[in-house]
Amino acid sequence: MNKQMIRYILGQVLRIEGILMLLPCVVAVIYREKEGYVILGVAALCFFLGTAATIRKPESQVFYLKEGCVATALSWIVMSVFGCLPFYLTGAIPSFVDAMFETISGFTTTGSSILTDVEALAMSLNFWRCFTHWIGGMGVLVFLLAVIPLSGGSHINLMRAESPGPSVGKLVPKIRYTARILYIIYVGMTLVQIVLLLIGHMPLYDALTITFSTAGTGGFAIKSDSISSYSPYLQWVITIFMILFGVNFNAYYLILFRKFKKAAAIEEVRYYFLVILAATAFIAWSLCRSAMGFADALRHAAFQVGSIITTTGFATTDFNLWSGSCKTVLVLLMFIGACAGSTGGGIKVSRFVLLIKTVKKELNSYIHPKSIKKIKVDGKPVEHEVVRSTNVYFITFMILFVLSVFLVSLEGKDLVTTFTAVATTINNVGPGLEQVGPMANFAHLTNLSKIVLSFDMLAGRLELFPLLILFHPSLWKDAVNQGVRRRKKEKNVQPV
Amino acid sequence: MNKQMIRYILGQVLRIEGILMLLPCVVAVIYREKEGYVILGVAALCFFLGTAATIRKPESQVFYLKEGCVATALSWIVMSVFGCLPFYLTGAIPSFVDAMFETISGFTTTGSSILTDVEALAMSLNFWRCFTHWIGGMGVLVFLLAVIPLSGGSHINLMRAESPGPSVGKLVPKIRYTARILYIIYVGMTLVQIVLLLIGHMPLYDALTITFSTAGTGGFAIKSDSISSYSPYLQWVITIFMILFGVNFNAYYLILFRKFKKAAAIEEVRYYFLVILAATAFIAWSLCRSAMGFADALRHAAFQVGSIITTTGFATTDFNLWSGSCKTVLVLLMFIGACAGSTGGGIKVSRFVLLIKTVKKELNSYIHPKSIKKIKVDGKPVEHEVVRSTNVYFITFMILFVLSVFLVSLEGKDLVTTFTAVATTINNVGPGLEQVGPMANFAHLTNLSKIVLSFDMLAGRLELFPLLILFHPSLWKDAVNQGVRRRKKEKNVQPV
Repeated sequence: MNKQMIRYILGQVLRIEGILMLLPCVVAVIYREKEGYVILGVAALCFFLGTAATIRKPESQVFYLKEGCVATALSWIVMSVFGCLPFYLTGAIPSFVDAMFETISGFTTTGSSILTDVEALAMSLNFWRCFTHWIGGMGVLVFLLAVIPLSGGSHINLMRAESPGPSVGKLVPKIRYTARILYIIYVGMTLVQIVLLLIGHMPLYDALTITFSTAGTGGFAIKSDSISSYSPYLQWVITIFMILFGVNFNAYYLILFRKFKKAAAIEEVRYYFLVILAATAFIAWSLCRSAMGFADALRHAAFQVGSIITTTGFATTDFNLWSGSCKTVLVLLMFIGACAGSTGGGIKVSRFVLLIKTVKKELNSYIHPKSIKKIKVDGKPVEHEVVRSTNVYFITFMILFVLSVFLVSLEGKDLVTTFTAVATTINNVGPGLEQVGPMANFAHLTNLSKIVLSFDMLAGRLELFPLLILFHPSLWKDAVNQGVRRRKKEKNVQPV
Repeated sequence: MNKQMIRYILGQVLRIEGILMLLPCVVAVIYREKEGYVILGVAALCFFLGTAATIRKPESQVFYLKEGCVATALSWIVMSVFGCLPFYLTGAIPSFVDAMFETISGFTTTGSSILTDVEALAMSLNFWRCFTHWIGGMGVLVFLLAVIPLSGGSHINLMRAESPGPSVGKLVPKIRYTARILYIIYVGMTLVQIVLLLIGHMPLYDALTITFSTAGTGGFAIKSDSISSYSPYLQWVITIFMILFGVNFNAYYLILFRKFKKAAAIEEVRYYFLVILAATAFIAWSLCRSAMGFADALRHAAFQVGSIITTTGFATTDFNLWSGSCKTVLVLLMFIGACAGSTGGGIKVSRFVLLIKTVKKELNSYIHPKSIKKIKVDGKPVEHEVVRSTNVYFITFMILFVLSVFLVSLEGKDLVTTFTAVATTINNVGPGLEQVGPMANFAHLTNLSKIVLSFDMLAGRLELFPLLILFHPSLWKDAVNQGVRRRKKEKNVQPV
């Protein structure tokens, strides 16, 4: 395993984190908050540690999928450890487990919070909290690929490990340009949303933080009632942008290069909008029946459906009080999630498209046993390997889900709380139901549950395997053996 | 499609059902119940309709998997339609949907009931109700194979469609002998349990009906409190036999032929007992903590774990009142289910063994991408096709589960009721939690929910695909085309 390269990447990630932390420092200056010193200190620490780790360039930049996964998983863990220091050191979140939970929830764009009174948080800290969503949304390693010249080797392995979805398409032959294009689209859409929110008379601070949370499909809000107190216009803007950030960015790339027909032909995006329309119609109809006006019902339904399927997790109303069937629909949407190649989480629409086509094919095989039709998506046959790994992904997901539900059930909370707490974190949504509902929080859980849920958030964001292989014994055996071999080699070389 | 052969099999199934219905008639004579006339009438109807359908032997006995599935699915539907007539025509269950639900619940060995007062039911009807469990446990088509000479053709396709588990092993080269051996073991164990219950001073009627429910891992009880009022000795006997009927019958076959080592080496059976031990220990520990005596805690824990993992569904206590973590464990056990090749339901232990090995292999492939190790079970490499179909099975199961949860959620019941109602029926367990808990029943659900759950019971028992392909349009298109072709052929032939 190329450990030098992993060290180098971790160093770069830390440096970037240090630089990005200067933004909340600026906020602290504006609002004259003393928390700014702490954030500045942490930023400096990150920058210097990162620089120290990157001074010596790795001998080889060769890089396999295994290293890509390990580097990605460790990057996210390191980022979270340092990212939580501002909360922990200022005393805003006195428990380290809580601070880690909140930060992991931020970077993984989950949006589950352990804060009981979010409005009591300093402006600069809250800014950092929402900003972690924006950083985590597109992925910090994608950013790394976009800005830092990492020559040689298979850097697609890094991107593959971090990007959501069953298969990473290189938009352009060079991975570095792909990463840049993605970030250009991301920044562009972020700016448009900020402007549209400002037009609706939202204060600048609110517009920035809420846009960060929307763009990353995160869900941290700066008010205890989430988005409820903003005007319908603002709520609609957020609804539309949540849904837009959940679209496969390949579609935007195609639109950017005026390939409209190709963009419209992406099956995943079409099913994504279909599910949103169907779920919104159902919930709006259901809310209307319970004596809500049509305009309000439509707004709440569209907002909540958009918020949950994109795994953002904002709320305009306490949907925990909705009818059982509406809540069931929302829970199902949590699992479906957004498109692959978006900033959203969940299992992803494209995986479900594949899974349903697999089942159809199986049924066909009972009737026409000799048929050898391949599964097609977007008119193209899908590689057997993609189908297989999608199946395995789904199964691994379910096993992790079930184990987590068991561990969290040791809390002794009711089944709905337990079940939705895991569902909402592993899918990077944010709020669950009952005691972890949209107007509640995760503070009352035990540390064990918080650790399990933090793990689930990371596993969900990194699409399971990059994180899970960290626990594979042979990975560490290999690494240790390698070290032993090298030292032996060095010993053998010296006498000559 | 060989429609004549399907007609012939359906006829045979009806004949057998007619003959088996004579047993409750005997019970009616003993207890002098006028319901006996109705049962006798239905039995006669079955026998004559069945005989009429079997007078003309099919021209060809060739039989593919497709026909095997269709014949099996239709057999179970026909059996349920006629099997529910005694309840419906006597007025014991005045609604036809309810009567169908109860009968399907019986044949599929689910044990969910819509009866609000089971003790008010006539003895003969209750006998028939429990007897359906025993019939459905081993499968009526397996019985057919054992007793009726069906020469020629691939009859394994019939057995494959009805037998639970990822792959049907022919115990002996001739499928007919396999079926006989299975029934011999089944009858033998049934008799032993009856004797042991009688030794514990259980009345004969109770011993018979409860043994039928245990052997089929069904769960219909003849008392409103299920098994609670019987002595600890009787409860332990039932516990042990529930667990024994959930073991892969291959193990008994091996023991019967003194291949003890081979029997002990079956991985599935070992994991099955491991899960039972672990779950029992956890729940017993949990119950002890809530101030229950150790002996009682162990008895209730072992009984309930055995009852749920084998998908029987008996209860000695209202486990709906247990702690959240105990209930979570029970819900997880519902999905695991019993061994393949047993009378139990659920996804099956062997499938989980395969799924977990698949995930392990995937993790390995990240670290050693070039490794081509095959998954092994019982020391033998598993065919790729088996792994693939297990994955697809799991995915199909989840999709059906989710769709059913959505449809049942339209009830407006709480999430736990909705979720466990579907979980308990699709896994053929019996009781769920909350409003469908062990001391409650399914009577209060709407007809839509009852129909959905009835469908789930059948789908769960027949392992999805045999039932699902009935809804495949090309099946019916083929059948119609075939008819048209034949008629054309006949027309063309006549003039010659």
